[in-house]
Amino acid sequence: MMADLRRFAINQITTRDWTLEQAVNGYARQGVAGIGVWTEYLDACGIRQGARLIRDAGLFVPSLCTSAWVNIADRAGFDAGLAENRRRLDAAAEIGATALVVVPGSLATGEKDLPAARSRVLGALEHLLPYAREVGVVLGIEPLHPMYAADRSCLNTFAQCLDICRRLGKGTGIVADTYHCWWDPEFVPGLRQAGPENILTFHLGDWLVPTRDVYHDRGMVGDGVVDFGAYRAVLDDMGYDGPFEIELFSKFDWWLRDGDETVAVAVDRCAPLVGGRQKAPC
Amino acid sequence: MMADLRRFAINQITTRDWTLEQAVNGYARQGVAGIGVWTEYLDACGIRQGARLIRDAGLFVPSLCTSAWVNIADRAGFDAGLAENRRRLDAAAEIGATALVVVPGSLATGEKDLPAARSRVLGALEHLLPYAREVGVVLGIEPLHPMYAADRSCLNTFAQCLDICRRLGKGTGIVADTYHCWWDPEFVPGLRQAGPENILTFHLGDWLVPTRDVYHDRGMVGDGVVDFGAYRAVLDDMGYDGPFEIELFSKFDWWLRDGDETVAVAVDRCAPLVGGRQKAPC
Repeated sequence: MMADLRRFAINQITTRDWTLEQAVNGYARQGVAGIGVWTEYLDACGIRQGARLIRDAGLFVPSLCTSAWVNIADRAGFDAGLAENRRRLDAAAEIGATALVVVPGSLATGEKDLPAARSRVLGALEHLLPYAREVGVVLGIEPLHPMYAADRSCLNTFAQCLDICRRLGKGTGIVADTYHCWWDPEFVPGLRQAGPENILTFHLGDWLVPTRDVYHDRGMVGDGVVDFGAYRAVLDDMGYDGPFEIELFSKFDWWLRDGDETVAVAVDRCAPLVGGRQKAPC
Repeated sequence: MMADLRRFAINQITTRDWTLEQAVNGYARQGVAGIGVWTEYLDACGIRQGARLIRDAGLFVPSLCTSAWVNIADRAGFDAGLAENRRRLDAAAEIGATALVVVPGSLATGEKDLPAARSRVLGALEHLLPYAREVGVVLGIEPLHPMYAADRSCLNTFAQCLDICRRLGKGTGIVADTYHCWWDPEFVPGLRQAGPENILTFHLGDWLVPTRDVYHDRGMVGDGVVDFGAYRAVLDDMGYDGPFEIELFSKFDWWLRDGDETVAVAVDRCAPLVGGRQKAPC
């Protein structure tokens, strides 16, 4: 039986050494329906050209990764971060991405005040929201694993991100990721509280034991301890019909392999988890 | 001015290469008032002899580390884990430790059901509590960083641990650790909700950026991003007058140095954070 991959996307960082063009073609060639795009690859390709490649291949784009960091204490630097985020919102709109994934950084250099960093991020999101609504791109609030709380993102629990979405309202939503959230006692309750309409994309990544590197040792689906079937059951039960997107940072394993092999294994492992119950085409 | 170290303990894993006797003498020699003991060192020394060494040096013992893991799905293995925990509670009582630090493991081999692992741990604690009360040792529930949720401990947020203490009541308390909790939006609110009487010991460890190893790269106080002064202010404000205890796992740095140097630097860095406001001697 053919795998049903209509809801399945690969986040292009998973095939780190491929250009955007290689990723678009490599995913489409194996029947993957969507691509999570990173700004670095998109900029290297050119935004207009990237949009054309994606459109021509017929891929959907759950998200553009990521927002620019706003972990800058001085006003001029902070404002430059906001301007770069507006540029990325434009790029997301041009490639038809549903969301810009918010990974906003955390502490500024030398700073130790985490509550202040969190307030700064909230302020940045409040500032960006009208523009995001204007260009029709959702701010995808992603809880990042607490081991990234100092540098990558100060948004670290599902409850914290859901609270931000509720405060900001329309134009925001949750990017859920098993790698970042599997440990969180509020992950499943939070998914249900958010409701299917507020989950923008559901990232798949496994937690390896042992984890050999804080930043780049995410596991292929099935190689770790994450109970993907249980999450799929919850998502079905709550009526989620959005995308599933595998995203691996893997310097010891998948980044060292040929992209075609990584895609083939990702498809093979994820197919049982991503089929069925698709949103009607709009 | 002499540093006021009456509330200050060093957890002996910080001087990994020292025996219990070396640690007791090495800490006392530099005026440190307490020692956090690990079972491996205590067993190597002999419990009775260890108790004598500690008593003779006049050190207080905030805790014995750690409980035995109970991440065993079959009944016989689980029961053996409980028996070992009773033995460690006896040892804690014999050395005058206030608490046995609960680090209960998480998933059993091949298991992916984290909620089941959490239920199993709660069951083990319920089972052990009457015995802990009988021997006069508190079960020290410690939130461990979420990056240890698969292997070291399935207790990972302050709110989760506080909830366990509330359910189990007398004979339980919180072991708070800046390294494990600094990212947690519920850390400071949780400390206040717990109240000073339920914080057994306050561990000091810094979060390094970058963190080079998931397991053994904790930072000396002052070398990372943790805002220790802010926590001290909260603890003073809520009336906490218990111990402060530095605990470092540091394979790239402090474990490579001479124990006397590690102790000297720990005293120097922690002295401004641990003085004053001591509980009246009982």
